Amino acid sequence: MDLTRFLGADHAVKDSRVTLLGAPFDGTSSFRPGARFGPSSARTWSEVLETYSPAFRKDLSDMKLADAGDADTFAVPGWDAVSKTIRGRVRKVLSSGSRLLLIGGEHLVTLPAVEEHLKIYPDLAVLQMDAHLDLRDEHNGARYSHATVMRRVLDHVGKGRLFQYGVRSGTREEWELAEKERTVVPDIAALGGILKGRPVYLSVDLDVLDPSVMPETGTPEPGGITFRELGSAIYSLRDLDVVGADAVEYCPWPGGGGPSGAVAAKVLRELAFLVGGDA
Amino acid sequence: MDLTRFLGADHAVKDSRVTLLGAPFDGTSSFRPGARFGPSSARTWSEVLETYSPAFRKDLSDMKLADAGDADTFAVPGWDAVSKTIRGRVRKVLSSGSRLLLIGGEHLVTLPAVEEHLKIYPDLAVLQMDAHLDLRDEHNGARYSHATVMRRVLDHVGKGRLFQYGVRSGTREEWELAEKERTVVPDIAALGGILKGRPVYLSVDLDVLDPSVMPETGTPEPGGITFRELGSAIYSLRDLDVVGADAVEYCPWPGGGGPSGAVAAKVLRELAFLVGGDA
Amino acid sequence: MDLTRFLGADHAVKDSRVTLLGAPFDGTSSFRPGARFGPSSARTWSEVLETYSPAFRKDLSDMKLADAGDADTFAVPGWDAVSKTIRGRVRKVLSSGSRLLLIGGEHLVTLPAVEEHLKIYPDLAVLQMDAHLDLRDEHNGARYSHATVMRRVLDHVGKGRLFQYGVRSGTREEWELAEKERTVVPDIAALGGILKGRPVYLSVDLDVLDPSVMPETGTPEPGGITFRELGSAIYSLRDLDVVGADAVEYCPWPGGGGPSGAVAAKVLRELAFLVGGDA
Amino acid sequence: MDLTRFLGADHAVKDSRVTLLGAPFDGTSSFRPGARFGPSSARTWSEVLETYSPAFRKDLSDMKLADAGDADTFAVPGWDAVSKTIRGRVRKVLSSGSRLLLIGGEHLVTLPAVEEHLKIYPDLAVLQMDAHLDLRDEHNGARYSHATVMRRVLDHVGKGRLFQYGVRSGTREEWELAEKERTVVPDIAALGGILKGRPVYLSVDLDVLDPSVMPETGTPEPGGITFRELGSAIYSLRDLDVVGADAVEYCPWPGGGGPSGAVAAKVLRELAFLVGGDA
Amino acid sequence: MDLTRFLGADHAVKDSRVTLLGAPFDGTSSFRPGARFGPSSARTWSEVLETYSPAFRKDLSDMKLADAGDADTFAVPGWDAVSKTIRGRVRKVLSSGSRLLLIGGEHLVTLPAVEEHLKIYPDLAVLQMDAHLDLRDEHNGARYSHATVMRRVLDHVGKGRLFQYGVRSGTREEWELAEKERTVVPDIAALGGILKGRPVYLSVDLDVLDPSVMPETGTPEPGGITFRELGSAIYSLRDLDVVGADAVEYCPWPGGGGPSGAVAAKVLRELAFLVGGDA
Amino acid sequence: MDLTRFLGADHAVKDSRVTLLGAPFDGTSSFRPGARFGPSSARTWSEVLETYSPAFRKDLSDMKLADAGDADTFAVPGWDAVSKTIRGRVRKVLSSGSRLLLIGGEHLVTLPAVEEHLKIYPDLAVLQMDAHLDLRDEHNGARYSHATVMRRVLDHVGKGRLFQYGVRSGTREEWELAEKERTVVPDIAALGGILKGRPVYLSVDLDVLDPSVMPETGTPEPGGITFRELGSAIYSLRDLDVVGADAVEYCPWPGGGGPSGAVAAKVLRELAFLVGGDA
Repeated sequence: MDLTRFLGADHAVKDSRVTLLGAPFDGTSSFRPGARFGPSSARTWSEVLETYSPAFRKDLSDMKLADAGDADTFAVPGWDAVSKTIRGRVRKVLSSGSRLLLIGGEHLVTLPAVEEHLKIYPDLAVLQMDAHLDLRDEHNGARYSHATVMRRVLDHVGKGRLFQYGVRSGTREEWELAEKERTVVPDIAALGGILKGRPVYLSVDLDVLDPSVMPETGTPEPGGITFRELGSAIYSLRDLDVVGADAVEYCPWPGGGGPSGAVAAKVLRELAFLVGGDA
Repeated sequence: MDLTRFLGADHAVKDSRVTLLGAPFDGTSSFRPGARFGPSSARTWSEVLETYSPAFRKDLSDMKLADAGDADTFAVPGWDAVSKTIRGRVRKVLSSGSRLLLIGGEHLVTLPAVEEHLKIYPDLAVLQMDAHLDLRDEHNGARYSHATVMRRVLDHVGKGRLFQYGVRSGTREEWELAEKERTVVPDIAALGGILKGRPVYLSVDLDVLDPSVMPETGTPEPGGITFRELGSAIYSLRDLDVVGADAVEYCPWPGGGGPSGAVAAKVLRELAFLVGGDA
Repeated sequence: MDLTRFLGADHAVKDSRVTLLGAPFDGTSSFRPGARFGPSSARTWSEVLETYSPAFRKDLSDMKLADAGDADTFAVPGWDAVSKTIRGRVRKVLSSGSRLLLIGGEHLVTLPAVEEHLKIYPDLAVLQMDAHLDLRDEHNGARYSHATVMRRVLDHVGKGRLFQYGVRSGTREEWELAEKERTVVPDIAALGGILKGRPVYLSVDLDVLDPSVMPETGTPEPGGITFRELGSAIYSLRDLDVVGADAVEYCPWPGGGGPSGAVAAKVLRELAFLVGGDA
Repeated sequence: MDLTRFLGADHAVKDSRVTLLGAPFDGTSSFRPGARFGPSSARTWSEVLETYSPAFRKDLSDMKLADAGDADTFAVPGWDAVSKTIRGRVRKVLSSGSRLLLIGGEHLVTLPAVEEHLKIYPDLAVLQMDAHLDLRDEHNGARYSHATVMRRVLDHVGKGRLFQYGVRSGTREEWELAEKERTVVPDIAALGGILKGRPVYLSVDLDVLDPSVMPETGTPEPGGITFRELGSAIYSLRDLDVVGADAVEYCPWPGGGGPSGAVAAKVLRELAFLVGGDA
Repeated sequence: MDLTRFLGADHAVKDSRVTLLGAPFDGTSSFRPGARFGPSSARTWSEVLETYSPAFRKDLSDMKLADAGDADTFAVPGWDAVSKTIRGRVRKVLSSGSRLLLIGGEHLVTLPAVEEHLKIYPDLAVLQMDAHLDLRDEHNGARYSHATVMRRVLDHVGKGRLFQYGVRSGTREEWELAEKERTVVPDIAALGGILKGRPVYLSVDLDVLDPSVMPETGTPEPGGITFRELGSAIYSLRDLDVVGADAVEYCPWPGGGGPSGAVAAKVLRELAFLVGGDA
Repeated sequence: MDLTRFLGADHAVKDSRVTLLGAPFDGTSSFRPGARFGPSSARTWSEVLETYSPAFRKDLSDMKLADAGDADTFAVPGWDAVSKTIRGRVRKVLSSGSRLLLIGGEHLVTLPAVEEHLKIYPDLAVLQMDAHLDLRDEHNGARYSHATVMRRVLDHVGKGRLFQYGVRSGTREEWELAEKERTVVPDIAALGGILKGRPVYLSVDLDVLDPSVMPETGTPEPGGITFRELGSAIYSLRDLDVVGADAVEYCPWPGGGGPSGAVAAKVLRELAFLVGGDA
């Protein structure tokens, strides 16, 4: 048992189908920072799981999984530098022929990952599972923030290519924009028809889960979905071409140690099977 | 961001539609005391939320909300003095033309609040959401206790005006009394017909929620409702005239920091919209 | 209130219908040890509950419940000695004419309890509620482990007498064995017909619950059942002859203090009513 | 290992030299309640220790130690009833010919214990080790409180018979009274001459220790003594006739993980040797 | 008891001798962020203390203390904006004729406070109590950081006006600079002669204390001083003209249970007496 | 910053002067298990420190330090297999020409490390810093246990070659043996003359520190030394030939928030300089 590498990640990046990459950054957190400890803690907790998924009926050992460690973004102030570092690391993974599974850090780390995917998949659709709309244009005077990240994604992809599931919090302005852009998806199953055959990037903000399931997150929002609902939602996408994914906002706290680590790790394991596809 | 005042409570009591008042008292707790820290902790956690409620489609900024701080009941021994203090503070809120939203403190603080409302609304009905019946006539030799509070309310309002939702714990005697008085309401929607047009006081003992959702409470009772169920229950009352409300038994613990604070704050936010009504 | 004895356990073993026995052992834990503190912590937390069960409509005071304390297995290394100690203590309870309610400790403690029951009830069926299959033949080189315990039970009882409910984790080999032996029971109600009239031993690994409900366990596995689902499952067995039961893998942690203790205690209270039957 | 009885307490009260008695009461706590869980938690933690004291060069097995369990004061509101219960239980211990070692609970529980000792030892001197003077005449309107307890003791014993060690907090009025009554003892060794040959009751409020050593207490006051200083202070009294003692204000947090439990238990073990004397 | 205002801070800023101001900022933390919650948590914990200091033999009620709340720097990204906000708030306090007592937030918040004091006291000396030298010229590419703050102060005040006490961590380059500039003061008493008659700003990074005393800090460094040593150090400055002070890097964990809150609050209380002087 | 490798461990084992090796084993813990998480947690916490030691006036970058990861002993039951694994890994380090710095795990892991050193240094002396004597011949029926480890070492090295510092707990028999064998060293400085010129293995059981300094350990024993005392003790050995060392019994709680992680890491850093010597 190796607590410093993700469960079953036995391959080199260049030989792998899917590569985990950590992005330990939490510089714009508006309530509880600490997501910088997310990637290492998720790796430790992954060892509580089996490598076999009864849903996907596959074992991580059947699949080529790599763990590329962390991008050097721990406690680095200044988003420009962090963004550049993440983009570089993501590019390296993708150019090796592997697919990305990113571990945050706060939600803003999704942006450089999406930007790199857009270079390869210009028609990429983005599916966000989240408690918060994250559609502000600015937050505390900043255009790049965990609260604006999906607005920036929307700037990139435009109408009809951003989908939001599980959202239950936002300002009036954000809700109006979401309605105008028709981003909110009440039923994940309905997405099948729309996204079939298109490359999809899936971003899971773990606070989409109810705080009872995932207490260790930066901005817990009561009223979320259960783990079984999230597991089903992920599994329901298995026939789509999910080319990359992330799980963000796992914010382990001192004295915490609750179920959050196991939750984050299990979401990542299922995402690995999803992104891995039939390969 | 001001961690010492409830989210969006920008108005003076005299100008407000709804006034929050803290009642930090936990003197009769029979298992885990600490609810005395509930009001201040709920205020801090409220900042994790938005001021906008997607359910009510309203923003706290549309409504006139005041935060009157705490009644001076922190660690004061002796219920008589505490009761008198709370009654005085509640009277002041009501006589200013504002409506009350009380933050406990243990459940016993509901009693003086109900008593003051009865002076203004003699036909007041009381709806209690709770894990426990709280119908004992005496507890550990005391007639005034968190375990007897609803019996005392029943003494005041009599048959047909006390309703209990979410209850799942009590002595055999309490269950017999509840059956005799027909207080238990399995389906909150069914209340609409009964309570329509009458003034209602809503008392939410947060332990009505499952302990997974609300672990930081004085007497956690497994098997409770989810946050979504509670949110729906509150929202389902929106056409009634809920003239006052409270949320009690949030008992933050050292090293806790779990989701309980966000849960308590969100319940309070939704209660504010409910009590505020169309004003 | 006596925090050192289980709620309502006022009788001597020889006069009792049901006897609680602790087995504080966690020597083979593969992730988080600490279940050795389970029995004493469950006793302390039991005091948060009432002695009356609204489901069973019975009070512990109606029933003769004893608390025999703990088998001396705390921090004893070596399974042989521990197993022998537990078997001796279980034998003593059974030969007094009382029925067993065992509190773990890790899941391996179920094995000696089942072995003693098999001497009295040769046709015993075993119903396991658990997140994990526990059907490995060996784990880390050991044949006796929390991960092999149900394989050892299967060795004893053979085909058609082991049933598993709530399972969601295992190796590929374990899932294949479970399929071959048809142990997995998706719907607990369907068991009624099969088990009617036969002696049943019920083993509840508390990690069958979702980690949000029961975070303090040795190997939390997200995606479990709710407390209400578990309560219903237990209650649905009331017409069967459940002659003995256990609840295992409650692993209280320092700084924890969450709802897990109340959950473990309430499961034990309901199991007491179930095992007590109509007596 | 039995987590529910104090380490080495193998004798019946009537056969014992020293008897431990718990007084789980925290009804007047002015900051953090929870000392009601102190006695049971101290018992659990005692098992981390050896029965042998290298300072006293004695083993608990050489001495006759009993554990009489707890007085029934857990969550009982109303000091009169609690005081009466404690007095009754203390009287019973003393009339059995055993000496008392009381475990709080908050500091107010010292008062009934001292009162019972005064009946037997009318010239009793009281030595208090504490962070706080506890000499208020009234606190929050109450004459009986953890903040007034030593004023009440002073009322009983009068000038020259109350001594205070380790104190570092009080109101101006309390400090003036302490000065007037010359209660403060800067150097414990100096007490030897004064107390030699007189019966002494030693009350250890565990917050005399620095909060780094004893964080789990109701009103932590930084700047306290180290454990070694407290151990030496206790040991330095070995030639006096300490006829009874207590350790109070251990206020375990939920789950109680810190070192406080071991500290409370070790203080109690050393006090047992001190009170046991040469017997 | 009001948990949202510092103990005894009953005066308006304009009438006060000393004004507390919070600066909840932690944007450059290199290990554990969270100091943004420091000011509000220190206020809550201050209520565990008395208003009277036995060392200074003064009561806060004798002194005019104000609590100006927090500068609006909670989760604001970007140091320029934060610095400007703090400078504005500090200027307002000083121009009201009151003296400053700043509560961090991370150590970088000291810089704008010192800058404002330099405008009024051009010959200001700065005394830093800290575990870390904080003399880097750059950290993670940033010139403004908790790890560079005292280098920036040194840039302002130059040789012979920065003094460092309690330091035990730094890079080789920082230690060389400290040696060259002779900033390190092994014995605080020796400072008296040097600083007599000059205006002094005292900055207390609470991690100067050993982590056992002050665990809740962003970068705990074992081997620090005890609370009594810090208390003595502060008290030993009473004859100097300490015109302003701060206490920084209190980083409460979620739920904040440890003794750290009481420690931070007591340091602030003693600093208030020190800054208040004879007024 | 890489949270999965020890601070500054940038070299391969074969190129290094000192090699860190983890031994995550806690199978014989008699109170609180969990030391299996010690090595990974110590690595994470090491990042809170600087690479420069002001005591040794050296930087880890001056020295060749390697991190060999963990021996595969996590949750492996059965001491024989664990011992063999550790011996193999230690042998490999030593045969590469590097020196060993072992991170426990429980104290029993010291035994195979000492055994391997004895093969190379037949006249090895062993210096143990510890709260407990660990000299039992048997514990709970086992000859190999954290409570017997130094008895087994004594069996190997015989009289005059085992030294114990900081000990304060044991059975009467252990104290008698310690006295007979004269193992206890009250003053570490006095060891210089005895050990000069001989190869020394230093084993630091972190519970030698007071539990206030190091709460996260398996069997906390109040009354220990401070961090500064331990730091001085280690530094005082700098002129001896300490050829290998370990730090054991760091037992992180879930989430590991306390200062213990920083303490364990700093002890390891200083031990690295000690073992590295002038190389």
